Amino acid sequence: MLLPSALTFKHIRSQTEKICEPLTTEDYVVQTMLDVSPTKWHLGHTTWFFETFVLKIYSKNYKEFHPKYNYLFNSYYNTIGHRHARVYRGDLTRPTVKEIYAYRKHVTQHILELLESYKEKNLDTLNKILLLGLNHEQQHQELILIDIKHVFSRNPLCPIYSSDYPTSPKTEVKNIQWTSFSSGVVSLGTDGEEKFYFDNEGPKHQVFVENYQLADRLVSNKEYLEFMNDKGYETHCLWLSEGWDLIQQGGMKNPFYWIKLDGQWHEFTLEGVRPLKLNEPVAHISYFEAEAYARWANCHLPTEAEWENGITRMSTDAFMNKPLDIHPRPFREHHCPDGKKITSENMLGELWEWTSSHYSPYPRYTFSKDAIGEYNGKFMANQFVLRGAACVTPQSHVRITYRNFYPANTKWLFSGIRLAKYI
Amino acid sequence: MLLPSALTFKHIRSQTEKICEPLTTEDYVVQTMLDVSPTKWHLGHTTWFFETFVLKIYSKNYKEFHPKYNYLFNSYYNTIGHRHARVYRGDLTRPTVKEIYAYRKHVTQHILELLESYKEKNLDTLNKILLLGLNHEQQHQELILIDIKHVFSRNPLCPIYSSDYPTSPKTEVKNIQWTSFSSGVVSLGTDGEEKFYFDNEGPKHQVFVENYQLADRLVSNKEYLEFMNDKGYETHCLWLSEGWDLIQQGGMKNPFYWIKLDGQWHEFTLEGVRPLKLNEPVAHISYFEAEAYARWANCHLPTEAEWENGITRMSTDAFMNKPLDIHPRPFREHHCPDGKKITSENMLGELWEWTSSHYSPYPRYTFSKDAIGEYNGKFMANQFVLRGAACVTPQSHVRITYRNFYPANTKWLFSGIRLAKYI
Amino acid sequence: MLLPSALTFKHIRSQTEKICEPLTTEDYVVQTMLDVSPTKWHLGHTTWFFETFVLKIYSKNYKEFHPKYNYLFNSYYNTIGHRHARVYRGDLTRPTVKEIYAYRKHVTQHILELLESYKEKNLDTLNKILLLGLNHEQQHQELILIDIKHVFSRNPLCPIYSSDYPTSPKTEVKNIQWTSFSSGVVSLGTDGEEKFYFDNEGPKHQVFVENYQLADRLVSNKEYLEFMNDKGYETHCLWLSEGWDLIQQGGMKNPFYWIKLDGQWHEFTLEGVRPLKLNEPVAHISYFEAEAYARWANCHLPTEAEWENGITRMSTDAFMNKPLDIHPRPFREHHCPDGKKITSENMLGELWEWTSSHYSPYPRYTFSKDAIGEYNGKFMANQFVLRGAACVTPQSHVRITYRNFYPANTKWLFSGIRLAKYI
Amino acid sequence: MLLPSALTFKHIRSQTEKICEPLTTEDYVVQTMLDVSPTKWHLGHTTWFFETFVLKIYSKNYKEFHPKYNYLFNSYYNTIGHRHARVYRGDLTRPTVKEIYAYRKHVTQHILELLESYKEKNLDTLNKILLLGLNHEQQHQELILIDIKHVFSRNPLCPIYSSDYPTSPKTEVKNIQWTSFSSGVVSLGTDGEEKFYFDNEGPKHQVFVENYQLADRLVSNKEYLEFMNDKGYETHCLWLSEGWDLIQQGGMKNPFYWIKLDGQWHEFTLEGVRPLKLNEPVAHISYFEAEAYARWANCHLPTEAEWENGITRMSTDAFMNKPLDIHPRPFREHHCPDGKKITSENMLGELWEWTSSHYSPYPRYTFSKDAIGEYNGKFMANQFVLRGAACVTPQSHVRITYRNFYPANTKWLFSGIRLAKYI
Repeated sequence: MLLPSALTFKHIRSQTEKICEPLTTEDYVVQTMLDVSPTKWHLGHTTWFFETFVLKIYSKNYKEFHPKYNYLFNSYYNTIGHRHARVYRGDLTRPTVKEIYAYRKHVTQHILELLESYKEKNLDTLNKILLLGLNHEQQHQELILIDIKHVFSRNPLCPIYSSDYPTSPKTEVKNIQWTSFSSGVVSLGTDGEEKFYFDNEGPKHQVFVENYQLADRLVSNKEYLEFMNDKGYETHCLWLSEGWDLIQQGGMKNPFYWIKLDGQWHEFTLEGVRPLKLNEPVAHISYFEAEAYARWANCHLPTEAEWENGITRMSTDAFMNKPLDIHPRPFREHHCPDGKKITSENMLGELWEWTSSHYSPYPRYTFSKDAIGEYNGKFMANQFVLRGAACVTPQSHVRITYRNFYPANTKWLFSGIRLAKYI
Repeated sequence: MLLPSALTFKHIRSQTEKICEPLTTEDYVVQTMLDVSPTKWHLGHTTWFFETFVLKIYSKNYKEFHPKYNYLFNSYYNTIGHRHARVYRGDLTRPTVKEIYAYRKHVTQHILELLESYKEKNLDTLNKILLLGLNHEQQHQELILIDIKHVFSRNPLCPIYSSDYPTSPKTEVKNIQWTSFSSGVVSLGTDGEEKFYFDNEGPKHQVFVENYQLADRLVSNKEYLEFMNDKGYETHCLWLSEGWDLIQQGGMKNPFYWIKLDGQWHEFTLEGVRPLKLNEPVAHISYFEAEAYARWANCHLPTEAEWENGITRMSTDAFMNKPLDIHPRPFREHHCPDGKKITSENMLGELWEWTSSHYSPYPRYTFSKDAIGEYNGKFMANQFVLRGAACVTPQSHVRITYRNFYPANTKWLFSGIRLAKYI
Repeated sequence: MLLPSALTFKHIRSQTEKICEPLTTEDYVVQTMLDVSPTKWHLGHTTWFFETFVLKIYSKNYKEFHPKYNYLFNSYYNTIGHRHARVYRGDLTRPTVKEIYAYRKHVTQHILELLESYKEKNLDTLNKILLLGLNHEQQHQELILIDIKHVFSRNPLCPIYSSDYPTSPKTEVKNIQWTSFSSGVVSLGTDGEEKFYFDNEGPKHQVFVENYQLADRLVSNKEYLEFMNDKGYETHCLWLSEGWDLIQQGGMKNPFYWIKLDGQWHEFTLEGVRPLKLNEPVAHISYFEAEAYARWANCHLPTEAEWENGITRMSTDAFMNKPLDIHPRPFREHHCPDGKKITSENMLGELWEWTSSHYSPYPRYTFSKDAIGEYNGKFMANQFVLRGAACVTPQSHVRITYRNFYPANTKWLFSGIRLAKYI
Repeated sequence: MLLPSALTFKHIRSQTEKICEPLTTEDYVVQTMLDVSPTKWHLGHTTWFFETFVLKIYSKNYKEFHPKYNYLFNSYYNTIGHRHARVYRGDLTRPTVKEIYAYRKHVTQHILELLESYKEKNLDTLNKILLLGLNHEQQHQELILIDIKHVFSRNPLCPIYSSDYPTSPKTEVKNIQWTSFSSGVVSLGTDGEEKFYFDNEGPKHQVFVENYQLADRLVSNKEYLEFMNDKGYETHCLWLSEGWDLIQQGGMKNPFYWIKLDGQWHEFTLEGVRPLKLNEPVAHISYFEAEAYARWANCHLPTEAEWENGITRMSTDAFMNKPLDIHPRPFREHHCPDGKKITSENMLGELWEWTSSHYSPYPRYTFSKDAIGEYNGKFMANQFVLRGAACVTPQSHVRITYRNFYPANTKWLFSGIRLAKYI
């Protein structure tokens, strides 16, 4: 792997700041639930990552920007020491937004100087940690958007993040098409040298899959409404026990950002509240809802192996040309730059797709013992894997072997449903 | 009562904004515990009070500034309708600070116009509600300061609100002097026509008091340390059961803002962290701590009647020349404008003083049934009365009959201890 | 005071066991909420009191029955040392009921022997502590009944404690009669030497009362239903803030043991579930409900002073002939042994009566520093005083100066409402 | 499958009651944590299962024993209707233990009569449900023992369930021996017709396994102590994030029933408290502890496939002669009835063995939609699979394909650690 260029580095860092442009100073500060972090914390934390794991190690004479920032912006790295408790991130009015931008500028500048000084060399470790830092920054680009969506959704004034989104055509959604795959041993994961990946994506190994079929597109709002109209949320035998309990406690009765206004379903979006679009994929649903829907449809959620094997064979360039967006796009035809005609119906990258696989280590996975090792391994209990990517995931961050993971009750994520079937 | 002058109105409104001058935009937004409200909420809520109870009623053709502000800035008036839940005040990034200042300006302007138009008349009801609104605004001036103190105290960067406070002399504190009062029927409360008071301060009525003595000053940090060094927090027989439980659960082991650094007691203040000053009154203590201290000192906390009767007789001008301040002053001598030499040791208004009286209605008190009636009466359970005033209480808001009230475990308030004894 | 006779001692101890006769072994074991203790814990704890404070101190060579019982049966005496946490009382299957009866027998026997040996002497301290122990035992007789009522009420099988209660006549309830008292200084409390009282009932002191009237009987179910039918529970301006919050959270919508079956109000009682009797006093209500009812009726709850002064003057023998019972009796006429005709309407002792007074120390009350001192004083915050007695209170335990106290949201107690009015 | 004989039925039912023989009436009643059910509830619930799913369906004219028992003894079958909430099981003093035994006798008798009447026929459905009921009863036999262990462990009197357990020899534990298995596709699960199994054990399907080794015995107390002495509980990089949080909150610092007395490790057992035996397998550990130990030992916990494939090949009669016991046996040699000399070190059935597999459906598993279908499928989220059996598992209930499942923080279960390694 080559050292990421200064250009790439600058681009990704500035991309983060571009995402924040529509925000007021006040928007950067609050934490509306435990999962959400204040935007200014994201800006500081991604910067702290570079300061801690790159500058403090590789940059001679580097002096830390502020003695308390290590405490404030460490997220969960026990190796790095004590940290400000997550639950109190929304209590911090200082450092101010302005001060954090100064911190960003300072660290970006020093990294660029470091890159300059390493020009002639090819230092593998530095390379790896820089790439990790950039991928980490991209993860937080997505988190900023989903967190701000939550912050705005809790405000009776319904703030709008952006209203540039073009009106979508009211085309009908075509029926799901199924692709068949035959049983046998297939490979899963990656451990190639040529491209960056997180440690949890490897080692590459073999898995036996059954004969199965995979849907060519996600489940639409229209289809999900049919499930709801068929008393989906009231039929206990469709639900896992924990999901049913959530429903009984009043915590789940429709997709997370749906609101009924004057008898009509609406959806809270980063553009504000608007009538539900039937030809868009259903979004912001928990694993429990995805799994119940699949069962209702006499299907199942694909395992990780079914998903990765299927998607790999269906379309190697499925993610091609995925622009960063703030909404999943409606299902419709459109043209690729290379002249091929594809439909968004078979494009990946609109929403993260729940798999039926709990998040576990691949065989021979090694839990690393240093700080970076805390990145992925330690969450391998009680979470489910999501595959693909979402409209809010940066394009260059997307990989077919990517393993995203969240607890089954997570809803603020841009998540959707792709069905599978045994044959 | 005369209509408050436009000058008074403008002065009190602008005073609120002056208190906010040292704050950054971020400081206005957060809610660090349930009791704390964001500064911008205080600014909006006090304005909403005038808009709702004055402009919407007395100002012809007045149009509300924003249709959702009634929902956002109602604190607890059930009569006025639904409201944004208190626990979520810190989730609101909008309206922005700037928008709230515009709201303030708009409402202030309309009130001034209203006052102008009423010049020649003397409308009693308008008078009363305006006075109530101004007293309400002054209460929030104090709340802004105690809330910001809490916000800053939770921040590892230890922000400083103001550092203009002069260094205090290291004078010794003189021993407490006792004034004696003999038993008999005394009067408590007020219902005079000439001066504003809250409904809970009346009706004026008679109470029997015992022979007792009242201390001439508050308990000092030095004295409180003696209690701590005598294992005050470890001696269960000094404590009420609820207080002892708090201690056992780790929730109370020294005054709220005390911090031990390198073996030395320090205090978090609005000037930042500084070494504890022994010649200042002990501040930010709960009722439980005040009561335990009193018991340890073979005294008791005065009842409301003992306090009001004693203070009235000791010094009718005790509150004289109380400047708004951000710290209780050290005990020391100083000169009054009129040449009398008094000591701050016998001045009132440094800290609210816990009485031993639960907050209950005076005999013949009537619970009002309109919105304004919700002001005081409905909190008459499970709170204790504090008397006097604090350094952060505006001078013109201070009255000897004033009844402040808080739950026994409250600590973020500027509260202190005055002792009483039976003889 | 004379030493209580062996006969009295034996009688009160056996009375406790008589109350338990209707119970199965299983009934002795459970704790259905934090306030409730298992019956076998009551039996053990009252015995532990005599073992700890009498036998271990006054009985030479006494050996404790079991080394762990001090830990298990200490309720809240910090002076006596560590104890089994209250919340886990319902976890203890051992000691068995049989073993606890053996413990009772053992301790009773040793006390009787001790009494025998002290025959000729008149030891004041022993006297006091024995009397305290017997009063303590009587308090737990009442607690056993209210706790068992709660245990049974939580069981879908609706167990019946006793069904011997005679059918009550369906007489009409007469209108409340008011007795007037004029303002002035009256005395409150007791400190006489001739009779036992708890330390919180003294010292006797003077209090100023207003001109007022006191009702001759408690509020009836019929009257309370009128309040409910007049939307009492939906009218926020009748309620203290904490009470209104309870209602909003669904925690209060009718008296505690009322159940609507087929559109008809029923009441869970120790006889089982039966239709609500309109001519009985309303029972098992919180302070919040009592206070809201009083406000709705344009009255107030009497202060302690109004209650004690009024009741003392109205009828010094009001409690006469109060049999231990498991229900408050319906309002009706009946004959006293001495031929006087009185009505149960003006009898005391049916239900504890909420006063408007928070539970506070009387002037010059001294918090004792030994174990016995923990009895009453340490609860003097955030509770309200109830006066009188209930049908489940043992006759010889009743006193006009008695101060019972509970938090304002308490409902499992046999509590009712007596109204007062200012004139 | 043949109808289970009357003899088998009677045997298994009476076995349940035999397990309860050492209990006092009080022991049957309490619920010391949410996971624990009162013994009398277990007795009633297993009986309810036969009444509901057999008698009410197959027995003409059968009248239910009590109209409320369906409500009281339904555990989690939504299909069967409303039920008494699990959290309140410990509140029920009635039905009494005696009444529940009468219920058991009644239902057992009717089932025997039903079996008699079906003698000549071979009704498949009845067969299946009876077998399910008996397996269900056996599960509760184990639950009674683990629940009673918890109940006794919470009692300061340390009750003893049985003290018949012979003193174990102090033999040394031999080093773990490793058996190797080579990679390839193996089969997992069962769907044979000849033997009973739960639906979650099928369908039989293929899985790819790596080259790996499996330990011949469980990890011993001695070995686990080495982990503890090597600061196992203080080394964050050995732990999953949730496990580390538990440790930080004070919820995990040694195996669940270990107690340090006078500096020596002891263990609470059904025989009472006794010094820790180093040559016994470590028991009552959470998944987090098992996984951390494995990582510390440079091994991993076997997947379900590794476990089932390995154990099947190592020893098909590993479970042979497993007596029902209340302790895991020490590792030692002993003789089989058939003369073969085996060591308990390689015997299965001492403790349930945590696998690294989350509990998920096997491919093509169908979630059943009737009440019986609620048995297993609905728990397939956020639990881990345990394989094997424990000393408290009835012999005839044991199967190699058996999938037990519990949340990762479960400790009251008889659980242990078997290591695996990749080669």
